[in-house]
Amino acid sequence: MEPSPFTPSTYPTLPAIEGVRLSSTQCGVKYRHKADVFLAVFEPGTHVAGVFTRSLTASANIDWGREALTHGTARALVVNSGNANAFNGRAGEESVERIVHACSQLLDCSVHEVYPCATGVIGEPLSDHLITDSLQTLYDHLTDDDWDHAAEAIMTTDTYKKMATRSTNIDGVPVTLNGITKGSGMIAPDMATMLAYIFTDAHIAQPVLQQLLSEYVGRSFNAITVDSDTSTSDTALLFATGKASHDLIDSVDDPRLDEFKAALADLLLELAHLIVKDGEGATKFVAVHVTGAASDGAAKRIGLSIANSPLVKTALAGEDPNWGRIVMAVGKSGEAARRELLTVGIGDAVLAKQGQLNPDYVEAPTAEYMKGDHIDIHVDIGIGQGSFTVWTCDLTHQYITINADYRS
Amino acid sequence: MEPSPFTPSTYPTLPAIEGVRLSSTQCGVKYRHKADVFLAVFEPGTHVAGVFTRSLTASANIDWGREALTHGTARALVVNSGNANAFNGRAGEESVERIVHACSQLLDCSVHEVYPCATGVIGEPLSDHLITDSLQTLYDHLTDDDWDHAAEAIMTTDTYKKMATRSTNIDGVPVTLNGITKGSGMIAPDMATMLAYIFTDAHIAQPVLQQLLSEYVGRSFNAITVDSDTSTSDTALLFATGKASHDLIDSVDDPRLDEFKAALADLLLELAHLIVKDGEGATKFVAVHVTGAASDGAAKRIGLSIANSPLVKTALAGEDPNWGRIVMAVGKSGEAARRELLTVGIGDAVLAKQGQLNPDYVEAPTAEYMKGDHIDIHVDIGIGQGSFTVWTCDLTHQYITINADYRS
Repeated sequence: MEPSPFTPSTYPTLPAIEGVRLSSTQCGVKYRHKADVFLAVFEPGTHVAGVFTRSLTASANIDWGREALTHGTARALVVNSGNANAFNGRAGEESVERIVHACSQLLDCSVHEVYPCATGVIGEPLSDHLITDSLQTLYDHLTDDDWDHAAEAIMTTDTYKKMATRSTNIDGVPVTLNGITKGSGMIAPDMATMLAYIFTDAHIAQPVLQQLLSEYVGRSFNAITVDSDTSTSDTALLFATGKASHDLIDSVDDPRLDEFKAALADLLLELAHLIVKDGEGATKFVAVHVTGAASDGAAKRIGLSIANSPLVKTALAGEDPNWGRIVMAVGKSGEAARRELLTVGIGDAVLAKQGQLNPDYVEAPTAEYMKGDHIDIHVDIGIGQGSFTVWTCDLTHQYITINADYRS
Repeated sequence: MEPSPFTPSTYPTLPAIEGVRLSSTQCGVKYRHKADVFLAVFEPGTHVAGVFTRSLTASANIDWGREALTHGTARALVVNSGNANAFNGRAGEESVERIVHACSQLLDCSVHEVYPCATGVIGEPLSDHLITDSLQTLYDHLTDDDWDHAAEAIMTTDTYKKMATRSTNIDGVPVTLNGITKGSGMIAPDMATMLAYIFTDAHIAQPVLQQLLSEYVGRSFNAITVDSDTSTSDTALLFATGKASHDLIDSVDDPRLDEFKAALADLLLELAHLIVKDGEGATKFVAVHVTGAASDGAAKRIGLSIANSPLVKTALAGEDPNWGRIVMAVGKSGEAARRELLTVGIGDAVLAKQGQLNPDYVEAPTAEYMKGDHIDIHVDIGIGQGSFTVWTCDLTHQYITINADYRS
């Protein structure tokens, strides 16, 4: 696989987080050339929040996670990359049960404190014994800070590992946030997209943690799209060990949370952007800013209509400032719009306004701008106050190459 | 442009229809190598029915056609291919007005009996004088049966001309139906898709004609998708000259219409299939049959979710019986579904049932079937009686090649 042109030249160094230990190895579920299973172990008292795919054909692992989350604490996260364990019927549920039981025995914890996750091919039975057989080795090699290998172990068609970190504070006490994520194709909003794991030593009550995660995925993971296709395995989990020495925060409105909130939102956005930039075949990183819509929800739906349009995405790949296709995508969104109030811009240029070509628009500088790898599209609907930004990538030959022959 | 592998080896011969005369020529709106304007002239008393794009950024021509249709009769149809006259503001409206006035003068008819249509690039001012300057020449060369050149004149990125004919009868009197259509990219249902013109000598009241067209586009033009992108110019018009010698039919329930209805539905479906088979870059013609959904509407939305999924479409291009992606697309549709009731088939094979791989499924014959150019996908949701069939094509490198560089 060609590496993405957005592959980072350096990766951030993620520090240890008290209460979290990590391990990864190659168990053979799918990949022969890299680690494919990742274990995180948390000290007792770790709170967990989660957001899962809204797909109605979600995997057995998703069903388990959703149920486990009602208990609110976590001791282990086990992720395999290569087999999604989706649409495997009763056998899929049994695989999950065997994995969580083995973990709970190893750590002497409740099965409801174990989060088994999976990503990869759909509808192939999971050889879960490869995972359970590896658990003792994983456990024996737990480290405090091998985030690099963790980020690598969860990759599938990703061309680079995705990790980010923030240092912040709660009530003056230093707090760390680490995040790792994976995703490249089958990426569309409507939930946490693909796999994302965020770890912190903050001491925050579970309902507060859940509110924060649910709110902030809305304008990060749920605001990206690579190909409009929604995975059966999408999961975002936020683990908080509570080892930082500040007092427990038990209200989402507590002003001591302000800096933490900003850091978390920022970290989630960075992780989401890392996914889009590694979108299958991506050569352009594109922000679609919609303003002046009837509501934020309408702005999001218009933004997605543009960001998911094959004709807009191929125009981006072709470095063609084809604003007619943007207008088309606004028109097909089904959201309230009036031709004569619509403004379309690319970069700093206004291409169309009041329902027609802007007479002052000169194409050459915009054509030049399109050759860059960061493209901003601005669409103002002109009828209200709703706004939303969606991030996406272009649609290229490489996407076809990757997906016309992924499984075989 | 590579011709579609579905290019017909022979084209049907469309007979003359009493009351319709045709002409086409090259006026220079866009194409230098082929005719780009088509004129049909109808005898007085011709009834017309129409269905237009639901896009909120529809072209000025669409606005005109929608308004003209309230008058119910037609004397002329003028179509240019190459410039959609969409998003041209007041200038676009003025172009339309100049064209319809010139036509109404030439034919001594009301402006409301003139249907100006356009397809092509969006947001570029239309040099309408090229069209009006050609009208006299077009008029002087009207013929009774040059359907071949008419079908050619309306093409843009189409790689073959699309025409079909049916002979039927009303009350024992022979009646003819001819249809021509164009479309290849920016093809998605939600209206009549792109341009389609149907001509008949039947004598049918306008409201009946409209009811028939509106109903039958639902399972023909509105049931196809190439790329999920909805045009600003989609139009289907049905002209009935009333020259056949049967009595006027003024009720949609008149049993004398039965054979005509079947012939019209069949003709529309053939025209719609011709568009999908010439879908940009298409190498596979794919029918997605959804049954057992909560309603026909739900079945259609599930069918479209499958037919528009880039991952399903690239798997089709790769001849990969990847039913996991079909399950994913069902899951993301948002329609009621339960994993354990879902059945997925390709061709004659049942790949998955009851929420998992069918234990009796053998991949080799299905992989072989995928190499063919007609693919049937069957999805049974297992919860209700709703059914719908959507037709689509695969997503290939050629689609990217065509669209990453269409305008430049």
